[in-house]
Amino acid sequence: MSRRSGHLRLGAFLYPSGHHIAAWRHPDARADAGVDFRHYVQLARAAEAAKFDLVFLADGVGTRGDNVDFLSRTAHSYVAQFEPITLLSALAAVTERIGLVGTASTSFNEPYHIARKFASLDHISGGRAGWNLVTSSSEHEAKNFNRDKHFDHAERYARAAEFAEVTAGLWDSWEDDAFVRNKAEGRFFDPAKRHVLDHKGRFFQVKGPLNVARAPQGHPVQAGSSEAGRDLAAQTAEVIFTAQQTLQDAIDFYADVKGRMQTYGRDPDDLKIMPGVFPIVGRTEDEAQEKFEQLQSLVDPKVGLALVSGLTGGFDLSGYPLDGPIPDLPETNASKSRQTLMIEIARRENLTIRQLYLRVAGARGHWQLVGTPAQIADQLEERFVNYGADGFNVMPPLLPTGLNDFVELVLPELRRRGLFREDYEGRTLRENLGLRRPAHRVR
Amino acid sequence: MSRRSGHLRLGAFLYPSGHHIAAWRHPDARADAGVDFRHYVQLARAAEAAKFDLVFLADGVGTRGDNVDFLSRTAHSYVAQFEPITLLSALAAVTERIGLVGTASTSFNEPYHIARKFASLDHISGGRAGWNLVTSSSEHEAKNFNRDKHFDHAERYARAAEFAEVTAGLWDSWEDDAFVRNKAEGRFFDPAKRHVLDHKGRFFQVKGPLNVARAPQGHPVQAGSSEAGRDLAAQTAEVIFTAQQTLQDAIDFYADVKGRMQTYGRDPDDLKIMPGVFPIVGRTEDEAQEKFEQLQSLVDPKVGLALVSGLTGGFDLSGYPLDGPIPDLPETNASKSRQTLMIEIARRENLTIRQLYLRVAGARGHWQLVGTPAQIADQLEERFVNYGADGFNVMPPLLPTGLNDFVELVLPELRRRGLFREDYEGRTLRENLGLRRPAHRVR
Repeated sequence: MSRRSGHLRLGAFLYPSGHHIAAWRHPDARADAGVDFRHYVQLARAAEAAKFDLVFLADGVGTRGDNVDFLSRTAHSYVAQFEPITLLSALAAVTERIGLVGTASTSFNEPYHIARKFASLDHISGGRAGWNLVTSSSEHEAKNFNRDKHFDHAERYARAAEFAEVTAGLWDSWEDDAFVRNKAEGRFFDPAKRHVLDHKGRFFQVKGPLNVARAPQGHPVQAGSSEAGRDLAAQTAEVIFTAQQTLQDAIDFYADVKGRMQTYGRDPDDLKIMPGVFPIVGRTEDEAQEKFEQLQSLVDPKVGLALVSGLTGGFDLSGYPLDGPIPDLPETNASKSRQTLMIEIARRENLTIRQLYLRVAGARGHWQLVGTPAQIADQLEERFVNYGADGFNVMPPLLPTGLNDFVELVLPELRRRGLFREDYEGRTLRENLGLRRPAHRVR
Repeated sequence: MSRRSGHLRLGAFLYPSGHHIAAWRHPDARADAGVDFRHYVQLARAAEAAKFDLVFLADGVGTRGDNVDFLSRTAHSYVAQFEPITLLSALAAVTERIGLVGTASTSFNEPYHIARKFASLDHISGGRAGWNLVTSSSEHEAKNFNRDKHFDHAERYARAAEFAEVTAGLWDSWEDDAFVRNKAEGRFFDPAKRHVLDHKGRFFQVKGPLNVARAPQGHPVQAGSSEAGRDLAAQTAEVIFTAQQTLQDAIDFYADVKGRMQTYGRDPDDLKIMPGVFPIVGRTEDEAQEKFEQLQSLVDPKVGLALVSGLTGGFDLSGYPLDGPIPDLPETNASKSRQTLMIEIARRENLTIRQLYLRVAGARGHWQLVGTPAQIADQLEERFVNYGADGFNVMPPLLPTGLNDFVELVLPELRRRGLFREDYEGRTLRENLGLRRPAHRVR
């Protein structure tokens, strides 16, 4: 394969005070960022001024467990945050060009509601909406929705696949030019361009049509995480948010998913793979390291331990010595990719429990880079030109300062290398990401 | 009872091109208003500049039926509109003081999602959110949510009552001062101020807690329609949107609902009754009448007939002579209050089918006033001072011009009479409506 040219894509993954687990305790942090709308306006506008493709919001439909002592020591447990669809809709009104991608689970939702809200957001924003499809794997979420436990692995993915099929079908309820709005003849839409889905499947019976016109983007951009399954992603996703630690893993993952797309008759260019990256940027290596250590010093050991337990599938490590190795873990019904990833990190780097929690506290399993702008740009460039990524979902350790650091220090370096845009190419998220606008299924 | 003093409350009930069934065909209408976000920004800002208490959005989770020829001739069938929660969230970002009240049905939703979205909107807007609780009574909606038919009347209301109970409980998941965010001690919240709902009822099992901090208003304002049942409204609603044709009906309804509140231990001041009013304002009577007739002339007879059928419970009137009387209608499972209202109007005013459709085309069963500013103010004042209403939900026939007419012509008249505010009294919707902020249930 020849050396790759072109621009990489960038997402700004917003998390209230920042992605580092102790970010909220940092002197520069707004500890109440999760309910401070002006904070998010500032972040979204900064990312837009820097020409990021999109802002991204994760989600969960519950707080993270019953370990109240742990929960009470962290801002990372979805205890006091905005809900993504409401937040992105509000941000749509105060931005012009940046994409707005939010997570919503298929496990405890109805496709009609999800299809409708993202189509509505696409209209409000003039074609900038994206939906990150995930499945819910926590009992704490299931218990908020009439269930004792979450759906098992296979069931979750089967439901998610059918959910995505229904949603895509609903987004084609109307052809692009269905609404003729002919005042003289009194004809609001052309009946021939209205399509009733009439879906009858294993999980859902949804008649349609959707009560929103076809979206400016045709369909809002469909994002997925690698956790939702490589096959599901290869089949339906247009952007994939993932976590790979090493260059080789990234290249393998990239090749595997793009390869699988051909099974489903899709062009590999129709999917952008954007791994998360957690960058701590300093003008010098020492400055970067100092910034990192200041955050690390704020990690409460009780939080670190509980965090590793959570990431390894809920297994309680509190009985094991903090400075001993990670024990063998039983297989659980929780997210397998995340669990495997944690254990791989620990084994490869020969970490103790304490070292593991400090290792994953910040990026929580994502790719962590601590260095100068040139060092960070080198790493990003290496992954991009070697087909390990189409771009990156940037996870600033601290907000807003970590985003500003990336914009002011790393972006000029990427631009100098011709790796990132000077201005937006288009008006819609699809245009900027280089994704085709889907034709209506009957065309 | 002594003559009433004080200010009346006003809502701006937004509907794409206006509430008149033929509004979209009017030369001044934006026929694509339903997907024109700037149109809504302009309306919300105009209502806010005029010091309206709130903007209000109705909703339906489906298009209105299978009669495609009818649907295609009207903009009033929820075929191409924004979804209310996304739209209100976007409007929150571009307004400062006006309340944002949206409709969401309890029939095909989960209380956790609804509680969360409205709490999030309340945070985003700084305490301006309101939820209009309705039940869904159309098969066309049910069929989008895995069902062949809608829930029957009693079941809908029982589900709605439990839904409201769960939602209120989730809004008290956290005490107001639960989030201490103590950076030095590493304590994000006080565990003693977190409350697990653990609801186990007939329709819902919801553990909680909600993953949003307590709302600025304590609870977002709880609105209801008279269709959702007088008892449910008396038990849970803080604002009620209703439709009464005559002064006596309005007074009777007002006394009945406020009386029922005492059964539930509530103070009558804790509920504001705001009937809909459809005003056609002219500087002279002739000008008002001309405006009205211009709109009426745009009603397609096929639309009028189908509209009456819809409002009378889906009964097909197309076999009956247009200029003959309304036949006796069979009782249906549809909204009884609406059906009864239609028939009462027809009988009282001795209308033919054609006259009925022209009679209800504009306000669709709401109170219709055609006249000068003084005449309209007289009518509103009469209802208000005689305890037939605490305020009104204004349904402009045409938008934006109908809202502008009300603001420029009727509001000065109401202000001259001391009936409407010069400026907002407070920052939150509750403060402006004069509703108490609910204390947390454990306090």
